[in-house]
Amino acid sequence: MGNKGIRKYGIKIGELKAGENNLITDVRGVKVGHVTLNKDDIKTGVTVILPHEGNIFKEKVLAASYVINGFGKTAGTIQIDELGTIETPIVLTNTLSVGAAHEGVVRYMLEQNEDIGDTTGTVNPVICECNDGYLNNIRLLEVKVEHVLEAIKDAKVIFEEGSVGAGTGMSCYGLKGGIGSASRIIEIDSEKYTIGALVLSNFGRKEDLIIDGIKVGKLILEGEKQVDKGSIIIIIATDLPLSERQLKRICKRATVGLARTGSYIGNGSGDVVIAFSTANRIKHYDAGILSYNAIHDNNIDLVFRAVAETVEESVLNSMIYASTVIGRAGHKRVSLNEYMDKVFNIGK
Amino acid sequence: MGNKGIRKYGIKIGELKAGENNLITDVRGVKVGHVTLNKDDIKTGVTVILPHEGNIFKEKVLAASYVINGFGKTAGTIQIDELGTIETPIVLTNTLSVGAAHEGVVRYMLEQNEDIGDTTGTVNPVICECNDGYLNNIRLLEVKVEHVLEAIKDAKVIFEEGSVGAGTGMSCYGLKGGIGSASRIIEIDSEKYTIGALVLSNFGRKEDLIIDGIKVGKLILEGEKQVDKGSIIIIIATDLPLSERQLKRICKRATVGLARTGSYIGNGSGDVVIAFSTANRIKHYDAGILSYNAIHDNNIDLVFRAVAETVEESVLNSMIYASTVIGRAGHKRVSLNEYMDKVFNIGK
Amino acid sequence: MGNKGIRKYGIKIGELKAGENNLITDVRGVKVGHVTLNKDDIKTGVTVILPHEGNIFKEKVLAASYVINGFGKTAGTIQIDELGTIETPIVLTNTLSVGAAHEGVVRYMLEQNEDIGDTTGTVNPVICECNDGYLNNIRLLEVKVEHVLEAIKDAKVIFEEGSVGAGTGMSCYGLKGGIGSASRIIEIDSEKYTIGALVLSNFGRKEDLIIDGIKVGKLILEGEKQVDKGSIIIIIATDLPLSERQLKRICKRATVGLARTGSYIGNGSGDVVIAFSTANRIKHYDAGILSYNAIHDNNIDLVFRAVAETVEESVLNSMIYASTVIGRAGHKRVSLNEYMDKVFNIGK
Amino acid sequence: MGNKGIRKYGIKIGELKAGENNLITDVRGVKVGHVTLNKDDIKTGVTVILPHEGNIFKEKVLAASYVINGFGKTAGTIQIDELGTIETPIVLTNTLSVGAAHEGVVRYMLEQNEDIGDTTGTVNPVICECNDGYLNNIRLLEVKVEHVLEAIKDAKVIFEEGSVGAGTGMSCYGLKGGIGSASRIIEIDSEKYTIGALVLSNFGRKEDLIIDGIKVGKLILEGEKQVDKGSIIIIIATDLPLSERQLKRICKRATVGLARTGSYIGNGSGDVVIAFSTANRIKHYDAGILSYNAIHDNNIDLVFRAVAETVEESVLNSMIYASTVIGRAGHKRVSLNEYMDKVFNIGK
Repeated sequence: MGNKGIRKYGIKIGELKAGENNLITDVRGVKVGHVTLNKDDIKTGVTVILPHEGNIFKEKVLAASYVINGFGKTAGTIQIDELGTIETPIVLTNTLSVGAAHEGVVRYMLEQNEDIGDTTGTVNPVICECNDGYLNNIRLLEVKVEHVLEAIKDAKVIFEEGSVGAGTGMSCYGLKGGIGSASRIIEIDSEKYTIGALVLSNFGRKEDLIIDGIKVGKLILEGEKQVDKGSIIIIIATDLPLSERQLKRICKRATVGLARTGSYIGNGSGDVVIAFSTANRIKHYDAGILSYNAIHDNNIDLVFRAVAETVEESVLNSMIYASTVIGRAGHKRVSLNEYMDKVFNIGK
Repeated sequence: MGNKGIRKYGIKIGELKAGENNLITDVRGVKVGHVTLNKDDIKTGVTVILPHEGNIFKEKVLAASYVINGFGKTAGTIQIDELGTIETPIVLTNTLSVGAAHEGVVRYMLEQNEDIGDTTGTVNPVICECNDGYLNNIRLLEVKVEHVLEAIKDAKVIFEEGSVGAGTGMSCYGLKGGIGSASRIIEIDSEKYTIGALVLSNFGRKEDLIIDGIKVGKLILEGEKQVDKGSIIIIIATDLPLSERQLKRICKRATVGLARTGSYIGNGSGDVVIAFSTANRIKHYDAGILSYNAIHDNNIDLVFRAVAETVEESVLNSMIYASTVIGRAGHKRVSLNEYMDKVFNIGK
Repeated sequence: MGNKGIRKYGIKIGELKAGENNLITDVRGVKVGHVTLNKDDIKTGVTVILPHEGNIFKEKVLAASYVINGFGKTAGTIQIDELGTIETPIVLTNTLSVGAAHEGVVRYMLEQNEDIGDTTGTVNPVICECNDGYLNNIRLLEVKVEHVLEAIKDAKVIFEEGSVGAGTGMSCYGLKGGIGSASRIIEIDSEKYTIGALVLSNFGRKEDLIIDGIKVGKLILEGEKQVDKGSIIIIIATDLPLSERQLKRICKRATVGLARTGSYIGNGSGDVVIAFSTANRIKHYDAGILSYNAIHDNNIDLVFRAVAETVEESVLNSMIYASTVIGRAGHKRVSLNEYMDKVFNIGK
Repeated sequence: MGNKGIRKYGIKIGELKAGENNLITDVRGVKVGHVTLNKDDIKTGVTVILPHEGNIFKEKVLAASYVINGFGKTAGTIQIDELGTIETPIVLTNTLSVGAAHEGVVRYMLEQNEDIGDTTGTVNPVICECNDGYLNNIRLLEVKVEHVLEAIKDAKVIFEEGSVGAGTGMSCYGLKGGIGSASRIIEIDSEKYTIGALVLSNFGRKEDLIIDGIKVGKLILEGEKQVDKGSIIIIIATDLPLSERQLKRICKRATVGLARTGSYIGNGSGDVVIAFSTANRIKHYDAGILSYNAIHDNNIDLVFRAVAETVEESVLNSMIYASTVIGRAGHKRVSLNEYMDKVFNIGK
């Protein structure tokens, strides 16, 4: 695992040990699926994160969200914050396709659950987005309802990163962005727990890029002027028992990882974090007094570090795994790989 | 105007004077349109509120949102809160049709603005919803993208209330709910300003209904047991200059009007308030230092009262204007009108 | 118990059964103490609520806060919201004495805990306040550090309501306000739980007062013009297991009870709610993974009703128990009692 | 100015130009005063920031606050958030002295304003704190009411940084922390505006310290194990016209500067940001419709950068200016200066 992603270049973010695949899916039960739409000036897609392998509506996971900067259109956070649960797959796509993705999740949930909208209430789709309009002709609304169903079917443990799924047309630090992931293992009371992150990166100016403290952006800048636009979606998963309050606390630490890669959290950026724990499940038809586990806040610092580290590494991985893409109107985003050897001068 | 809605029964909510039509559209420039889908077990629709008559994307209105209870799926509030603006029509529909409504708004905005997603950024649709699944076969997803466009075309100053548009299949206090509206005129420094509310009512148990202090619900209860489900969407409009902070403050006073009609703000209720002021417009392509007006908070109490009064009256109007409806699976919601004479014993 | 407070007048707020003494102290372990400063133009004091009988710092209670309107100076809510716990007695006093009360709590906690500020961290005093400046010469800063210690010593189960402790100089709806309390018993899974409220009432205009739906304020108004100033502090206690998220949800329902008594939540009002549950204790020196109980949100509606009912009744009790007071500069606040027989025409 | 603070070592944080003195007081009208208590095991004090030279209660400044992590006891933020103003000097001190500082501000304000608590309402002191208990015998409560008045009297444009005032006993990254400041000049529409920051630093583990991308902490670690405790208070001032909403947005960017110095925002840290603009003043006795200026959000990125840069540099300056201190129980915090030459190997 030591020779993949940004680690290929000898760069190790932070102190904690990565999980088996250094992916969000190192959290047992979590799966990720993609649909990639890549043809001519269509550079977009859908990525889904399944919190567990069962019926998510019937067994909800504890969750929280945090808005770092709200220039974004993510749907579903109001109910996450009120009830502290997620009850659907989480879907990532482009900004103008939130509607199609929303209907896609609704149709999937209706199919899986005959009771929704009939003998029980409705369902809360969680749809996150970034604007891939630089490379993708986003006005075409090419993401369709069925792409969500396909992406869910594609969900697996070992998934692709980079210019894939919702990340197909994304830009990051003026280079090619997309999907990136990382994980960390922590130990509490001799038990091991996994914290994983997945990002959809689409923000920043080239000159601001920092890799492990090195101001790489300034080294590779070729005179171009850029504005800090775009967004980042950050999904955190863990099998550690955390309360909804604690999940919100760990969401906030994503900012640390983000800032370390050079972001100033620009005005035009929709930076949204969603975190869930698979350790406590809330049954839809349950009632009465329930029992939960949660870590004592005295021990939570280790989790904060794991979040900061995985988010920092996920952003870098999203760039390292992305290939150079030419899209709409001849717009081009170069892969970070093309600069890495020059800058770090380290053999792969 | 004194003999319409709940006022027909001699009931006057609060102390302030109503506007010309006692509608949210008394705020100059605001218009409301409906599409009603009413056939067999389909009892649903779309209602749109246009903040002004120009290009809303190019001239945004200052706005704020407040979640009274977040068991709801409203989309668009993250950006309202961050940037303090609304840049699209506000759409109300049923819970599972948020996706279609979202795409409808996107398509309308793309049509109106060639720059969106091309030379400028994207757009933030504001979609609010309640679950009309008791009367409507909500699983059919009968609301389509084009219904949004039709509802926008239908927008006008004198609009219908009750079982219409998004209100077609809604229930309120175990009776028929739907769309209701009211307005108030206040005077500050010898200038007149209008505060208007529009609600989509879909909450509460029959036994809790209070009309102007009278526990009507207990008088008309016929032994049935009900749970407090459903939701309410509350839109507040004004031509008074208010800052984003002040708009959030007035959102919070909607709870007062709501509580006065008998609500306990049940767990299962998605109670969301959105307020906007037409007094300050933010131009999409503007820059630099801008000048705004806003009321001194020393004078804001009058606005708070106006909000509480219009929300209370809007809820009652939504019920008074609604007719008895039999929908899905023979489910029936009776109009409040059928009880009013009995309870209040007052000629119209 | 049926013949005390507002119930003396045959008025029963809501549907739920009150606890043994209809006081917040019906929640086992909770105690309330007062120090009353009442001499010439000094009409002020201190009221403390002890969440349980043990060492509160060593065994914290789960808690949440909610700001209905933030024109107030309550201290301690930042940490309540972050950590979800209260670790000191809650102190109520006048606005300009927050400093003295803060130091009072610090000195009490240092005395009780040799480790604070030495081998462990510091402590988070929770100080709530209203402005009693109409009746009290608040500029004299007559509340001293030692009054907090005295009030803690005075803490007991059967405590006085009305013009006592922090309520000595408070005004409510243009009449005499102060300390009021109420409780409700609910049953979940055949177990009984208690929800109790205590308010420090100091808000509203006489003409707005509503008692159980009757617009009493308008009936007793004698031509005076009043502004809606002042504040209300609302403390909710329960032995029901609730998570921090749920405690915040129940805080929000205090607004319902408040609105039912006639409040429009005026600009000048610092309306703050703090809720705690004695069911889960967080030990200061604990660590690792802990186990908690919490009600399923499917059952929480009953708790919401209990909160709304107890807050509404607590406000009325604060006024019913208060006696007429003449204070600073001859300012006078009449007891609600002087009007009750006239208005309700009911023998005690 | 180029050879002071961290710049002595050739380190320049960010791209923007610093103000005349690289201090928060580069914002015209802002002044800072200290009282230092430094004797035996007493290592504490008071620092005040005056937002302008006039009567702050009568002419309030627009303001906002943001809690990065709420393990803190800062008082006054509830009203800042509700009304969007600050009306007193901002006071920084140790955690257990919030009460004394609160009373100090109240007494100062009463002295300055005969109307407070008499013919007008009360006043909202803003008191921020960190726990200096490692070096200071914080249990002695050595900060007194009069120290606030002395610190206000001491307020000036050129003020001391490091182990002074509230910073006397603070620790940062396992070294000596305290007061640090920095400023930046930005240009909008050919007008120059100043953004200044002042921090009270008291957080972090030595091994986490990063200086301009260099992991200095790991280089200077001498085997000791540390926990991430303590806090940071961050005050941002500007003469740029910003709305309350925008002031909250810039508060959030303080996290970026903080993260760049190595912080993971530990559990035990009370990290609170307060920002104010001197450009719009709200008069206490004003009323009606007022006119404000505010920057268009399209231009706000430059402000975000200025905030991130000034906060990062302020933290470093707080450490560079601090001298080595031995305090309570022989506890010792070494100055960062002792390591700088070794690490950076650059002549002053």
